[in-house]
Amino acid sequence: MGAQNISVSITINISSEMSLTEVSSNRSFNGYQKVYEHKSEVLKCQMKFGAYIPDEHDSALPVLIYLSGLTCTEANFIDKSGFQRFASEEKVIVINPDTSPRGIKIDGDDESYDFGTGAGFYLNATEPKWSEHYRMYSYVVEELYKLMFANFKVDANRVGIFGHSMGGHGALVLGLRNPNLFRSISAFAPICNPTNCPWGHKVFQGYLGSVEAGSQYDATEIAKNYDGPERNVLLDQGLDDQFLKEQLHPENLLTVKNPKIKFDYRSRPKYNHSYFYIATFIGEHFKFHVDSWK
Amino acid sequence: MGAQNISVSITINISSEMSLTEVSSNRSFNGYQKVYEHKSEVLKCQMKFGAYIPDEHDSALPVLIYLSGLTCTEANFIDKSGFQRFASEEKVIVINPDTSPRGIKIDGDDESYDFGTGAGFYLNATEPKWSEHYRMYSYVVEELYKLMFANFKVDANRVGIFGHSMGGHGALVLGLRNPNLFRSISAFAPICNPTNCPWGHKVFQGYLGSVEAGSQYDATEIAKNYDGPERNVLLDQGLDDQFLKEQLHPENLLTVKNPKIKFDYRSRPKYNHSYFYIATFIGEHFKFHVDSWK
Repeated sequence: MGAQNISVSITINISSEMSLTEVSSNRSFNGYQKVYEHKSEVLKCQMKFGAYIPDEHDSALPVLIYLSGLTCTEANFIDKSGFQRFASEEKVIVINPDTSPRGIKIDGDDESYDFGTGAGFYLNATEPKWSEHYRMYSYVVEELYKLMFANFKVDANRVGIFGHSMGGHGALVLGLRNPNLFRSISAFAPICNPTNCPWGHKVFQGYLGSVEAGSQYDATEIAKNYDGPERNVLLDQGLDDQFLKEQLHPENLLTVKNPKIKFDYRSRPKYNHSYFYIATFIGEHFKFHVDSWK
Repeated sequence: MGAQNISVSITINISSEMSLTEVSSNRSFNGYQKVYEHKSEVLKCQMKFGAYIPDEHDSALPVLIYLSGLTCTEANFIDKSGFQRFASEEKVIVINPDTSPRGIKIDGDDESYDFGTGAGFYLNATEPKWSEHYRMYSYVVEELYKLMFANFKVDANRVGIFGHSMGGHGALVLGLRNPNLFRSISAFAPICNPTNCPWGHKVFQGYLGSVEAGSQYDATEIAKNYDGPERNVLLDQGLDDQFLKEQLHPENLLTVKNPKIKFDYRSRPKYNHSYFYIATFIGEHFKFHVDSWK
């Protein structure tokens, strides 16, 4: 189960900019579902994220970062997945960021659902028009990660990442590129090979200037060359998913031969791409991560 | 537990108007979460409702009708409560209607969140301005009830009703006034004594012409005179509910002395009026209803 003991050494520089403003707090499953706002230094805008905090324990708690799909804010996962039941049962803190910079205006950022606002794709843009703000890769891996440690009692040896669709892509890419930060990875219906699908072509050309430049953010390409500690990745896929054939291509990722990576592929007949599918199986993902940390 | 065997005799006249159009269907917890649209004869408009259907069994299934609160459509409960997990486990069909007539326009119906659109209050209006369409009491008890039997394989001896806030009021009123139709009743944070709170005053004056006329739709008043089969009612209440003191008044209902009614009162410290509260405890409500049907 990839359950090696990895000693994580992270230097966390907590700046005065790392303070959070609480936007909302709701009692939920013997814990609190919070939403926080903060000024992001990486994205240069105000950002919100969700944080589910189980009732306090004496020791530091494990944490899961959840990355959402196209068009989502932090709210969709909080409202629709029912994850709090399992976060409470397993005593896991869950942090879920927004999907793009917010409150800024770049010409063209609202023209389509799959580019710009709500579609940050968890990469760092290099095209000048987008590169100042669209840096969701660094936002999650650097800023949000540090914020987590600065504000919550987190166990650095039990941090996992998961997500859905564009966020499943994000979980695979961020997780495999940063095995020292993330001990466990799972994904619901991820975009597995974005250099080979329309969504990926559009965002890589737009944010990076070419499809080729996207290979550094392509889970299938990253998996081929992965040389970190052994990883068992849970890859979850509904078989009636309306985006499966054109956009997701799990078959490309699953056929990568790399002894360092195993896939625990769970296909779900009749399920589609929606949060009804996620809600049905999210308990299995919590169990997978908790088992991976043992 | 009020678990008498009641033989229910209902004459169901199924007309050609009772056909449903499927608006959506999503696989969810080994069943399907559907939304249907139909032409309501009672409300004289097109209406939508949710229907969760567990995978088929040979026998007829029990059913729960869920009534939502102010401002909701059928979507809130479907998306936010996580009820499907329990409906699937317990093999219960769940039907949840909208909260008012839709797609009609009456002067003033959109001026406030607590009157008109989204605020039908599960009563039959008598004021001429509202009485043609605002008939949610008859819509649920007569039309939706018949639609259920016409379209799904339902066990008439195991039908329960529950709801939240305005819909908790609806569940108590419809359930206690129609013990032959509903074997079990539960409510999350219901408006227990609407003739004694601002929400009730406003809607009774508006729809019925006076607060006094509202006593027939006031659970506390109905409970005083209830003379049907013994009922054990689950009354659920968050203690940090922002509407508890001014609007809900469970204390008035709980102090009714009627040997035919017992209250299983479950107060929840720290929980508020939101769907986070409902999601946390909805499993207990399914268990309560299933136990009541035994």
